[in-house]
Amino acid sequence: MLYYNSDCNETNEMKILDCTIRDGGLTNDSYFSLDTVRAVYQAVCRSGIDYVELGYRNSKEILSPAEYGPWRFCDEEQLRKVVEGIEPLNTKISIMQDAHMAVPKDILPKAQSVVDLIRIATYLRDMDKAVVLARNATNRGYECTINIMAISQEELKEIEISLQKIESETDVQCVYIVDSFGALYPDDVHRLIEIYKKNLKNKKIGLHFHNSQQLAFANTLLGIKEEVHFIDGTLYGLGRAAGNCPIELLVGYLQNTKYDILPLLEVIQKEILILKEEIKWGYHIPYMLTGILKKHPRKAMSWMKRSQKDDFITFYKSITDKC
Amino acid sequence: MLYYNSDCNETNEMKILDCTIRDGGLTNDSYFSLDTVRAVYQAVCRSGIDYVELGYRNSKEILSPAEYGPWRFCDEEQLRKVVEGIEPLNTKISIMQDAHMAVPKDILPKAQSVVDLIRIATYLRDMDKAVVLARNATNRGYECTINIMAISQEELKEIEISLQKIESETDVQCVYIVDSFGALYPDDVHRLIEIYKKNLKNKKIGLHFHNSQQLAFANTLLGIKEEVHFIDGTLYGLGRAAGNCPIELLVGYLQNTKYDILPLLEVIQKEILILKEEIKWGYHIPYMLTGILKKHPRKAMSWMKRSQKDDFITFYKSITDKC
Repeated sequence: MLYYNSDCNETNEMKILDCTIRDGGLTNDSYFSLDTVRAVYQAVCRSGIDYVELGYRNSKEILSPAEYGPWRFCDEEQLRKVVEGIEPLNTKISIMQDAHMAVPKDILPKAQSVVDLIRIATYLRDMDKAVVLARNATNRGYECTINIMAISQEELKEIEISLQKIESETDVQCVYIVDSFGALYPDDVHRLIEIYKKNLKNKKIGLHFHNSQQLAFANTLLGIKEEVHFIDGTLYGLGRAAGNCPIELLVGYLQNTKYDILPLLEVIQKEILILKEEIKWGYHIPYMLTGILKKHPRKAMSWMKRSQKDDFITFYKSITDKC
Repeated sequence: MLYYNSDCNETNEMKILDCTIRDGGLTNDSYFSLDTVRAVYQAVCRSGIDYVELGYRNSKEILSPAEYGPWRFCDEEQLRKVVEGIEPLNTKISIMQDAHMAVPKDILPKAQSVVDLIRIATYLRDMDKAVVLARNATNRGYECTINIMAISQEELKEIEISLQKIESETDVQCVYIVDSFGALYPDDVHRLIEIYKKNLKNKKIGLHFHNSQQLAFANTLLGIKEEVHFIDGTLYGLGRAAGNCPIELLVGYLQNTKYDILPLLEVIQKEILILKEEIKWGYHIPYMLTGILKKHPRKAMSWMKRSQKDDFITFYKSITDKC
């Protein structure tokens, strides 16, 4: 019939990474219960998703454990509580380090860890720190990526310089385009993928989108077509502000492949939906406005906690020059 | 900077049509208050949107006025109550006729009507009726389009035959691609636009998407790039099942053009948000599932009214062979 049908070849190389707990942790200071994290881990394994990211390993000397939940630090002991008794099947475990909030010494040698992949999230200005953390991770035996955040704010020339630095100074397998503000249109994504391909001869490309303008899934589909290697999603889109690309949409699109949507539906039903009572992710006008205005969503997140959260006009005026 | 910036040239030809009341009426049997419809009309006029569709003009001999609200029939007298005292600026008024539920005699001569545009919605199987209604509308002095519904279910060859019939037998200005099920991926849209362009030498192309898979806005952006003429949106995406392309996203994308987002934000805040208490549009897993499975959303809409609406697994199994 009419449809563009995804076929299995598309996934021979491509990997899906679920970062529900990690990115969702930006909405609740990483305070998920162990039961929730285990349920997510088990569902993601059963669905055949390639990687699951269980949180950050940021430094307790920089962030206070009194202010953040356990998934902001992901102690090895904590991670072992997650995986205990659950069959991983083919799913690998990822954690993230923020370049400006993490230190190399928190990473154990790979042989002592359940972690497979360490992703280094960085702003361009912190690229030197990111390179140090990435070299540390690969030297200790892990797979590694560098994820360039807030890329919509950066000059193309500066992006190219950083890509060349990553290419020549690290052994990471992949570099991500991270649309932290949900500001990128498909043509922007296309242009960035071209720039990444031009500057990265020995690294793959990854994509992580926010959904401020309901473009996270569509931008990811574009990336699949342009043969990127890593794509990120989260259960029901749970993530900062408007959230991320819903992983069930990715698996729905790839429904003739190895992935199974049913475990994802089940865990959304049992564990994720109820979080909506506390966390306001999804399509909301304040998040949309920071997306179209190419701004960090923090003001929208703060606005969404107010009783007058639906006074869109006042919010719009507060973040623009209009008055 | 980095972004793909929409520029004014893109809108020289393109027209935006707001169909909040018409498509939203499929969620509440067209029972909006006159005050709500007037507020929507005024906001759409002030924002510079090109057309506003206030409902259907279907036949009272086929549908009972006891079962449907006034916006399913759009009596001329009712429409005059909407526009009275409101400055239309440059916004034209549209109504829709369903090919299988409307009759020619309900259309007054243009000189006696506030309506500018009549859109004929049809399944391919009712194309003969659609052509009769379209010829009636243009003969009586209106602008007219034919909107091919549920196009994801049709064979390409049959679509081409119908396009050729419309081209040769009518004076409509535009033929729409209508993704009633929210099943089309961007590559499907691209292919359909190619087929429309190949078969329509003297008609423009229009796009109307449903948002089951969060692709309505992205698919519309693709259409803008491929130079379609008419694009549809609704306030906050209000519309059947998952709803439509949010018109505020379109205007956000086109923010350097003649359109103004503020009146849209204001009416969403004052009139549309409150409807969420009664109407479950937006991204919900049952609607998503009918989208990825390429099915009519009616089963999902019915499911969403049950107390067990969040039992996704049972719903999934009920609409597939899996048990």
